[in-house]
Amino acid sequence: MTSDRSLRLGMIGGGPGAFIGAVHRLAAEMDREFELVAGSFSSSPEKSAETGRELGLDKARVYPSWERMIADESSLPASQRIHAVAIVTPNHLHHGPAIAALKSGFHVICDKPMTISSELAAEMEKAVADSGCVFVLTHNYTGYPMVREARELVKNGVIGEVRKVYAEYLQGWLSEALEEDGQKQASWRTDPARSGPGGSLGDIGTHAFNLLEHVSGLRVDSLIGVVSTFVSGRRVDDDAMTMVRMSNGANGTICCSQVCAGRENGLSLRVFGTKGGIEWSQEQPNDLIVWSKDGASETRRSGNAWLSDSAQTLGRIPAGHPEGYLEGFANIYRAFARAIRGEQDLEDAYPTVADGSRGVRFIEAVLESSESGKWVGLKNT
Amino acid sequence: MTSDRSLRLGMIGGGPGAFIGAVHRLAAEMDREFELVAGSFSSSPEKSAETGRELGLDKARVYPSWERMIADESSLPASQRIHAVAIVTPNHLHHGPAIAALKSGFHVICDKPMTISSELAAEMEKAVADSGCVFVLTHNYTGYPMVREARELVKNGVIGEVRKVYAEYLQGWLSEALEEDGQKQASWRTDPARSGPGGSLGDIGTHAFNLLEHVSGLRVDSLIGVVSTFVSGRRVDDDAMTMVRMSNGANGTICCSQVCAGRENGLSLRVFGTKGGIEWSQEQPNDLIVWSKDGASETRRSGNAWLSDSAQTLGRIPAGHPEGYLEGFANIYRAFARAIRGEQDLEDAYPTVADGSRGVRFIEAVLESSESGKWVGLKNT
Amino acid sequence: MTSDRSLRLGMIGGGPGAFIGAVHRLAAEMDREFELVAGSFSSSPEKSAETGRELGLDKARVYPSWERMIADESSLPASQRIHAVAIVTPNHLHHGPAIAALKSGFHVICDKPMTISSELAAEMEKAVADSGCVFVLTHNYTGYPMVREARELVKNGVIGEVRKVYAEYLQGWLSEALEEDGQKQASWRTDPARSGPGGSLGDIGTHAFNLLEHVSGLRVDSLIGVVSTFVSGRRVDDDAMTMVRMSNGANGTICCSQVCAGRENGLSLRVFGTKGGIEWSQEQPNDLIVWSKDGASETRRSGNAWLSDSAQTLGRIPAGHPEGYLEGFANIYRAFARAIRGEQDLEDAYPTVADGSRGVRFIEAVLESSESGKWVGLKNT
Amino acid sequence: MTSDRSLRLGMIGGGPGAFIGAVHRLAAEMDREFELVAGSFSSSPEKSAETGRELGLDKARVYPSWERMIADESSLPASQRIHAVAIVTPNHLHHGPAIAALKSGFHVICDKPMTISSELAAEMEKAVADSGCVFVLTHNYTGYPMVREARELVKNGVIGEVRKVYAEYLQGWLSEALEEDGQKQASWRTDPARSGPGGSLGDIGTHAFNLLEHVSGLRVDSLIGVVSTFVSGRRVDDDAMTMVRMSNGANGTICCSQVCAGRENGLSLRVFGTKGGIEWSQEQPNDLIVWSKDGASETRRSGNAWLSDSAQTLGRIPAGHPEGYLEGFANIYRAFARAIRGEQDLEDAYPTVADGSRGVRFIEAVLESSESGKWVGLKNT
Repeated sequence: MTSDRSLRLGMIGGGPGAFIGAVHRLAAEMDREFELVAGSFSSSPEKSAETGRELGLDKARVYPSWERMIADESSLPASQRIHAVAIVTPNHLHHGPAIAALKSGFHVICDKPMTISSELAAEMEKAVADSGCVFVLTHNYTGYPMVREARELVKNGVIGEVRKVYAEYLQGWLSEALEEDGQKQASWRTDPARSGPGGSLGDIGTHAFNLLEHVSGLRVDSLIGVVSTFVSGRRVDDDAMTMVRMSNGANGTICCSQVCAGRENGLSLRVFGTKGGIEWSQEQPNDLIVWSKDGASETRRSGNAWLSDSAQTLGRIPAGHPEGYLEGFANIYRAFARAIRGEQDLEDAYPTVADGSRGVRFIEAVLESSESGKWVGLKNT
Repeated sequence: MTSDRSLRLGMIGGGPGAFIGAVHRLAAEMDREFELVAGSFSSSPEKSAETGRELGLDKARVYPSWERMIADESSLPASQRIHAVAIVTPNHLHHGPAIAALKSGFHVICDKPMTISSELAAEMEKAVADSGCVFVLTHNYTGYPMVREARELVKNGVIGEVRKVYAEYLQGWLSEALEEDGQKQASWRTDPARSGPGGSLGDIGTHAFNLLEHVSGLRVDSLIGVVSTFVSGRRVDDDAMTMVRMSNGANGTICCSQVCAGRENGLSLRVFGTKGGIEWSQEQPNDLIVWSKDGASETRRSGNAWLSDSAQTLGRIPAGHPEGYLEGFANIYRAFARAIRGEQDLEDAYPTVADGSRGVRFIEAVLESSESGKWVGLKNT
Repeated sequence: MTSDRSLRLGMIGGGPGAFIGAVHRLAAEMDREFELVAGSFSSSPEKSAETGRELGLDKARVYPSWERMIADESSLPASQRIHAVAIVTPNHLHHGPAIAALKSGFHVICDKPMTISSELAAEMEKAVADSGCVFVLTHNYTGYPMVREARELVKNGVIGEVRKVYAEYLQGWLSEALEEDGQKQASWRTDPARSGPGGSLGDIGTHAFNLLEHVSGLRVDSLIGVVSTFVSGRRVDDDAMTMVRMSNGANGTICCSQVCAGRENGLSLRVFGTKGGIEWSQEQPNDLIVWSKDGASETRRSGNAWLSDSAQTLGRIPAGHPEGYLEGFANIYRAFARAIRGEQDLEDAYPTVADGSRGVRFIEAVLESSESGKWVGLKNT
Repeated sequence: MTSDRSLRLGMIGGGPGAFIGAVHRLAAEMDREFELVAGSFSSSPEKSAETGRELGLDKARVYPSWERMIADESSLPASQRIHAVAIVTPNHLHHGPAIAALKSGFHVICDKPMTISSELAAEMEKAVADSGCVFVLTHNYTGYPMVREARELVKNGVIGEVRKVYAEYLQGWLSEALEEDGQKQASWRTDPARSGPGGSLGDIGTHAFNLLEHVSGLRVDSLIGVVSTFVSGRRVDDDAMTMVRMSNGANGTICCSQVCAGRENGLSLRVFGTKGGIEWSQEQPNDLIVWSKDGASETRRSGNAWLSDSAQTLGRIPAGHPEGYLEGFANIYRAFARAIRGEQDLEDAYPTVADGSRGVRFIEAVLESSESGKWVGLKNT
């Protein structure tokens, strides 16, 4: 069942064996903001149809290709056709569908990294501007209530002027050459033709980068980095580390790795200022530690009435009832829906096409720096 | 959007201001096992209609009373009428709707505590048996993957023969007389006419009791308890503590409180045996600590491929992506759906009407013991 | 090397294989408050001499029996003879040496439980009063800075009026019958002739009881308890659990166990009042969690300048440099030294003979209650 | 009291207001390995005498200068004169006393960083070699049992071939210009004439560097770094960050900061290999987390009989009784004593003069790299 308010969503990608497609579907429908009514789930028409059947979709709206979906949906009456498209394909297949969808007037929510080069990213920025449509990039970790609380604390000066930032995203699942065994998630992520030039950089490094900029309210001005490929035969990086300088003179590190054996999904952020600091870890997302120069540290937990409005708005259930990854992801979809409807929402309610461009430039800058051994600038748009 | 497989659900209760109704709706639809198509959301027809509208339900299936819903749905053709009823009313309003629904052949999922006396509980047990329908009680915490893992470890002898059990559920939200300010959640929970004889005992004590029996695989044989009402003017207990003896000779404590100021939703369980122990806390539900007599403690985390099948089955996303309260709750709904469809599922896949009866007897036994100062038996059915 | 201020200490007990004797020696000398100059380390003169040699003591002051030590030291000139006696023998050998020492004008520091019956405890209380000497019982856990901080917070009303108390002390090391293998620590602790009537109750239960009364500033008025012996053939309890009522109407539980397999030294305390609560765990002793009804929880850490004076006084090194068990124990010795010198110290700076009597009565009360199944009073002296 | 085995120690530095001098004294005497019998505690003869009096030292052996102490002690008969010298002065005053002491045949234990330039460090290396004396540098954090356990696990291949290393040491106490208020600890540490060229780098960065090399068993081959001075007017760095390449091809980061406001003494280390990883944090030093590629993480705790011999040797009390900073420091003194006596001890039982040289080179390399923006090599001696 869906609410009267539900928007109609079409999905590109997310066929058999996909991970993130299922996440998008759960997130999109959790708050009844969207109803999935159409899809082109695979480049194989058979597989697309199979997934459509499993999802109980109207057969007529399960398409053999994304081009057909966009074309056919465009020709449906406004009361039936989709409002928005979710793009959950491998990285090389974001740009094409996104621009086509935008040109047809469909709002777009797209997985990260946004695309595989800054030239393509610029085209996407232009397409968004030209279309007047909403474009959301699923840097989903900014959807966690306590990430928002952290951002509010920084913005309101609770930790003073920012001096140090430490962002990291450590995983271990690619410690071995899973791609050689045909594991689907590993295969496309380690294939430069599909992942783009960055491996771990694109897959998780951009999340850490985005989280850092989101919470600190600062921009990474320049960086120096080293990318590594530890697993023999792998064609993209599986590890990167960088030192960064921020727009206000703060500095710090951004590290990502997929070969920290035993670590699951260790995205964490620490930001320190003249008066205190904040610390957040994705694996315990309902806790936010706030350090203070002159007193005890606090552990702020989601769901409490004394949190910032931003943090409270993103919660569904009272304090002590953990919300997790899917709820955080759904918050991004909710922001997407509100933007489509023109409703008021949080400031910087969702990651934008500009954030997506910055992510792509981050990948390119780290790779360039690792090659040259020099600092590389990330000029802001 | 719902899958072809989705079952049709009608809800009783869950109108404006309700907490648990919204949780049930999110949980029921998360995995597309159910589609909410009908409801009687309030004893006030206007409020029922209002909630129905907000949810986008067909007006014809939003009913002014639960009696009407059961009667009218029964007369719909099988291809349209609801398969199941979710009862999310205050405790005194579980028994009537449940029995009526069962008599009409509707499967039932019902909030806890099951009802307000063991006599009524016995009637419900009989009604379930007579109906042949599925009845699920939402002791939702048994839906967490790591609770299942704990149960498997105990069952498989990893911690040896159980000797000690410590279950507790500590909250602080009723530290003050919120009911006097008309707070809806506090009001009915502290009104014996609606909550039944137990206050904290029914609201949270039964969860701790059920979790303990579920994980340990043992039964509480007898107990001695003390119930307290710390907040002046309150009409039910807001705290209870008990010492218990288990069916195998183990013993321990079960404590619950709603006046532990500052605590959010502190349900936790520890079970120790001859070889080791397990420890789980609801506020960090993806972690399970396993103690060992002869080695390091382990922290098992949900989503890993080396967990028991039971634990893995209950997860949606890979390790390191936290699942929370809603996902655990949705697992109970999934088990409900599978039972309705006659599909294979986990052993003891969901809390049953018999578990519900035990919970009611637990409440009565603690109250009786607190009155008499003596040990009281909980004979098993 | 010792300071001019160092007091001369004689030890009774603590010979080969002893655990707590070595702890007392480290603690006594850590801050140079005491210098160990004499000892009767074992009932075997040979073993006493052996320990004396290992410790580098003057042979003439290593005695074959505690009676001889007290007699001979008494006859030394004041400038040489010991100021104080440390009694670290098994429980049944506290009373005799303590009274003899006090009668000879020696100050006494004695391990817990104080003795093996309340009659003997009363004699010790009288002996202390008659002697005018200082008597300290090593409930060493009250020497931790953050335990003191907790006490201060409660006393100053930070958590409001106390309603709930939960004290526990869970170990696993006696999960098997170590005493049958001749393990020295296990042997005397499970021999009623040496341990007295309580097993786990005396060894660790009294610590939990004392910690609770120390921090809460309240007295246990009455209790109901169950003692268990889980290991076959054991002659004393290896587990106990109680429900208690406090002098102000608060209530809660005190549990101890030595069969929680895998647990090391799990002493912890939680106290909740009308405005918040405190939580402290011995295994992470530098942290104190402070819960608040209306805001984030705090983690107060030892060594900080913004802590209470009491907590600060008990630290040696700045925040972030963990102090542990030995430092906490040494704080009790420091308080002992100050009391001997008549120096100002913290209020209730150390556990007294009256605390020792309460501990003995606690053991007796739990045993009596477990036998009768009834509530038993602990009237205050 | 001291044991017959106690070695006689003289101290240089550690007068009024000193922090680390008191730590050295507690650590030296904790296990009776040393007895402090002589000292030159300050460049002010009056202050030296004052400290000597407070410590109860024989007046004749409290010296007005370190030169006099070395000269006069040398002329005492072997049965009286000191065996060893502890140097606890500011960094610029390590080199002179150390070489003088070594030349007079005294063993030396010296605080870190070893000295203020690699030229001086080379002289110290030569002096040690020429003297045949024992020289220990107090990188005290290697004295923690669980650091040793980590080292053993890495050495024994439990985590496989090392790929990633992350060392950090974050403090916040210098977030403001304490040196302008005359705070003694801040003053000399921020005065290049006394601290040498590195500020945070020397004070804490060298600890992180040493810990990393100790545990990983690898050498830092080259690094690129950035040093910062965030507090206006400060004359040395108060923050540094580096990326490092290890001798086996692993890489990672070493970061230190004294302006992470609110952090106390956050030294931590993570090392990941092909099969798993280890994680240790100084603020909870009794825990060691061991990550595994294929199973649950473990938390190993000090004091257990199933730990490596190395870890067990460094503990004093059973598992669950926390040992802290002072005990870890005392373990370094114990190793020093054993080396002096020629007793068997752990492999790499203490940090050596060569480790000290590496630390000095680390400081110089980071400063050089920060200046040039280029990678700098740290060739092994």
